[in-house]
Amino acid sequence: MLSCLSDSSHDREHVYRVLYNAVDIAEGEEDVDRDVLVCACLLHDIGRPEQFEDPALCHALVGAEKAERFLLEKGYPVDFAANVAAAIRTHRYRRACPPESVEAKILFDADKLDAAGVMGIARTFLYKGGVGDPIYTLDENGVPSDGADQSRVSFFQEYKYKLEGLYDRFYTKRGRELALQRRPAAEAVYRALLEECRRPYISGRATLEKILKEAEEHG
Amino acid sequence: MLSCLSDSSHDREHVYRVLYNAVDIAEGEEDVDRDVLVCACLLHDIGRPEQFEDPALCHALVGAEKAERFLLEKGYPVDFAANVAAAIRTHRYRRACPPESVEAKILFDADKLDAAGVMGIARTFLYKGGVGDPIYTLDENGVPSDGADQSRVSFFQEYKYKLEGLYDRFYTKRGRELALQRRPAAEAVYRALLEECRRPYISGRATLEKILKEAEEHG
Repeated sequence: MLSCLSDSSHDREHVYRVLYNAVDIAEGEEDVDRDVLVCACLLHDIGRPEQFEDPALCHALVGAEKAERFLLEKGYPVDFAANVAAAIRTHRYRRACPPESVEAKILFDADKLDAAGVMGIARTFLYKGGVGDPIYTLDENGVPSDGADQSRVSFFQEYKYKLEGLYDRFYTKRGRELALQRRPAAEAVYRALLEECRRPYISGRATLEKILKEAEEHG
Repeated sequence: MLSCLSDSSHDREHVYRVLYNAVDIAEGEEDVDRDVLVCACLLHDIGRPEQFEDPALCHALVGAEKAERFLLEKGYPVDFAANVAAAIRTHRYRRACPPESVEAKILFDADKLDAAGVMGIARTFLYKGGVGDPIYTLDENGVPSDGADQSRVSFFQEYKYKLEGLYDRFYTKRGRELALQRRPAAEAVYRALLEECRRPYISGRATLEKILKEAEEHG
């Protein structure tokens, strides 16, 4: 697990938070195989280095294969390895490949919970900083875009595309509950940051244009 | 200027925000040489690549020298180049080298304003993600530290060391006023994120320990 950590948004402590979230969520679910769940949490991101090297690869698919092979090599039962792999395969935020077992649903929710609230915003910034993406891009009026209907990558685009709507995507009652507790703080951050980004462009640029015009008039 | 941009926390739009902040702040000050101010804003971070290559270098000192040489080569008057360089030399958050001229004070405040509020937090995360630093480190109880009195680098350490106290460091009335408007939102982000970071370690880890103990007892 430790050898497959790639960046500070998906570091060792992310894995531990997902594990701790998962066991909390599991308390509200029935017939959970906790060994499968704990193992799937610890190994859920081991496909990240491959996706980082080649973005066409999906870290959930690669990770599921790596985990299954690893567990079989270590002598774990075939069923156990298959159940862990199934949970890892479906933990990604993709509608085409939904989680099926209760352990897979809990892993999905535990990982999504770490993308909810201010934590999700902080981790998105860490990730964006790592790949060099900006906070915003400018709209056709030269003002920071709010990220909606935007094709160019930025923090605001990611917020609108991924973070804002994730609260509707939880599979477990407890996962949804924990995520919803974090939503107001995340929404407040988005609004405050957008306002802080826009203000200089609106107020400061008007002042700058006035100064430049005055300078021109005075020769 | 554009060729010296280094990362997404100090990108082209950071330079424009500092410029727009500066002309806004200048409206409340007297006897401002706006040509010196605008030029100093545009060139204030041109020493970043050198500091990035060699962290022992100070981008403010390097940038001041580069800017002065550049302006003299372009035929600007000696006094003008020296005034721009002086403002750039003292824009960094260092008590040993405070800004003296009104233009230097405005540049300092305009740059610090871009480190205030949620903007400062967002840019710190971008920077931390770029260099691979974590959100937090664990204290002696294995719980995320709040960053106070902490020697190991993390977002929370940077918040406590630099962001939390910067509101007392403004030189102009307007700069301080604009910064203080942003402070409550920044403080709310810090508190919410610390709570979100700590909760899994406190609640989830207790649950995990209970499960592991039960598993042991059942053989």
